[in-house]
Amino acid sequence: MPRGNRLGRWMLQEISEQPAVLERVCREEAGAVAAVARRLRARLQSVVVLAARGTSDNAALFGRYLIETRLRTPVSLAAPSVVTLYRARLHLRGTAVIGLSQSGRSPDIVRFVQEARSAGALTIAITNHATSPLARAAHEVLQLHAGRERSVAATKTYTAQLAVLSLLVAHVAGDRRLIRAHDALPDAAMAALNTAAAIDAVAERLSKTRECLVTSRGYNFATALEAALKLKEGSRLVAEALSSADLMHGPIAVVERGFPVIAVAPPGRALNHLAGVLRALRRRHARTIVLSSVSTALRLATVAVRMPAVGEEALTPHIYVIPLQLLAAYVARRRGLDPDRPRGLRKVTYVL
Amino acid sequence: MPRGNRLGRWMLQEISEQPAVLERVCREEAGAVAAVARRLRARLQSVVVLAARGTSDNAALFGRYLIETRLRTPVSLAAPSVVTLYRARLHLRGTAVIGLSQSGRSPDIVRFVQEARSAGALTIAITNHATSPLARAAHEVLQLHAGRERSVAATKTYTAQLAVLSLLVAHVAGDRRLIRAHDALPDAAMAALNTAAAIDAVAERLSKTRECLVTSRGYNFATALEAALKLKEGSRLVAEALSSADLMHGPIAVVERGFPVIAVAPPGRALNHLAGVLRALRRRHARTIVLSSVSTALRLATVAVRMPAVGEEALTPHIYVIPLQLLAAYVARRRGLDPDRPRGLRKVTYVL
Repeated sequence: MPRGNRLGRWMLQEISEQPAVLERVCREEAGAVAAVARRLRARLQSVVVLAARGTSDNAALFGRYLIETRLRTPVSLAAPSVVTLYRARLHLRGTAVIGLSQSGRSPDIVRFVQEARSAGALTIAITNHATSPLARAAHEVLQLHAGRERSVAATKTYTAQLAVLSLLVAHVAGDRRLIRAHDALPDAAMAALNTAAAIDAVAERLSKTRECLVTSRGYNFATALEAALKLKEGSRLVAEALSSADLMHGPIAVVERGFPVIAVAPPGRALNHLAGVLRALRRRHARTIVLSSVSTALRLATVAVRMPAVGEEALTPHIYVIPLQLLAAYVARRRGLDPDRPRGLRKVTYVL
Repeated sequence: MPRGNRLGRWMLQEISEQPAVLERVCREEAGAVAAVARRLRARLQSVVVLAARGTSDNAALFGRYLIETRLRTPVSLAAPSVVTLYRARLHLRGTAVIGLSQSGRSPDIVRFVQEARSAGALTIAITNHATSPLARAAHEVLQLHAGRERSVAATKTYTAQLAVLSLLVAHVAGDRRLIRAHDALPDAAMAALNTAAAIDAVAERLSKTRECLVTSRGYNFATALEAALKLKEGSRLVAEALSSADLMHGPIAVVERGFPVIAVAPPGRALNHLAGVLRALRRRHARTIVLSSVSTALRLATVAVRMPAVGEEALTPHIYVIPLQLLAAYVARRRGLDPDRPRGLRKVTYVL
């Protein structure tokens, strides 16, 4: 096998497992999710705190939008150093604190959850490792069922985190339609994998540039951040994620002819604003790569990546991240980099 | 006057006004702050929400660390689109919501505060314009006393926001020492302006590079973000802010010989971790520009910028941002750019 084909082979393998992982999460974790949802429902009076780092922090950001829009409880994304460095004992009695870590071994997230538990919070771990320190620290554990993740680039654990979060919120809200919509995720994920050829053409060109922007808004702002993180860490692209609101404010000034901008534009509440941004980008002759299932958005693109319909806007992040994971893997390969073992990156974040 | 000298003249003028602005905020707003603090003290049972965009959002991040460490109430940094796009009606009864905007005219921040008020939150506006829509929307108004800000690059309104926030938290906490420590801010700000010659030498070299990193942790993570924002918007540098925790995790991999990294390293709880990061950067032969008043940290630097002592770690962000504002202005000038009117940037962010 030529060496080029071994670069990122675990990442590509794990990206392709996502339909099966999404199916497994929904089948095997549904009971646990429903039970945790009953406990969580009693803890929505004040605030929900989500604690995470890196890719898990992007999943937490999705959780933030979903909890606020569907459950109406304000969410705080934890700053762990408030607890680990400044030794503050936050008033968390009566709240719910959710720690997200695929390994369950990030020391500052474990510590945050431990402190929250002694302060009287209901603590929930979302992790791929049911016997990890994070799982032991929390009252309740929700598992990712992603199997072993060999690549340092987290992919299937990310989509599994999204699915656990959306199932959990759907159960708390008693939203039968949203619960049932999860059944369509495996097929949609499979269809998203079929963008591979189109994405490789994008990668061919992107691998020769140095910088790009990724934009979206609302639920999929998390998708933009996660895509930029993967492109930075695995492919060493200078990739910046900006919400389309922030992009329009100022940074659109740096967009010149041919500048690559990736837009995550599923149907939903954010689409109108994104379409306006795409029109502004066209006036600047940017090179836009648009992911959408909506023809009006795709027609505004330099490169259109047609996505499968997902049904619920709240579940589009689970599917729209998949072509962008592929993109990061393909760009890395074409640059001779191995996203499975990026220089200087470890699988577990050791920070305290 | 040669044209070069006119570039960023308002920004430089306004940077230099900061000692006077800090003095004015503490003198003229102390009474109002004490009164608002009494009302706020009754609203710390669940969550404090801070709503802001751009530079004001960096001030809000500082406020988040300060409120959590000193008052122990969890803080949520608002995602305005939850309200403006998704039309969620957040449960905010009994909470406090603080909207920050120098102009008081960012429509999504105004809307967020209006909705919070009708949901039963105590609403507080921190703004430079007492008759602005934001001020009219909120129950209470705290003013910045910064005078007219002509440059699009917000500088004096940022430090005034920090001072209002730290005074407010000090009053709520009944922390006399922290209140009194504000009296030393004008002199410290004056001393920080005296770094101008050292900073211009840094700018001379930085203006020839394309990328840099800015790092810190804890209270001054906000300083790193604000410095990166100014360097991006005004000087068109690809400047990224990373907490020193996140930098150590992975992105330190991209740091090669001579890569410029600016570290904000005042004495305090974050210093130990930052010193470790500086040693790791030295092993990679990075070009580090270190702002500190501590000799041990300065000795680890390629370029040491000695800062005045500030007394309270919680007040160092007010002072440490000043040389970095100067840096952004000088880099812009040397690149022939006018940070007073960056291409595509407006003074007020119109997003809804």
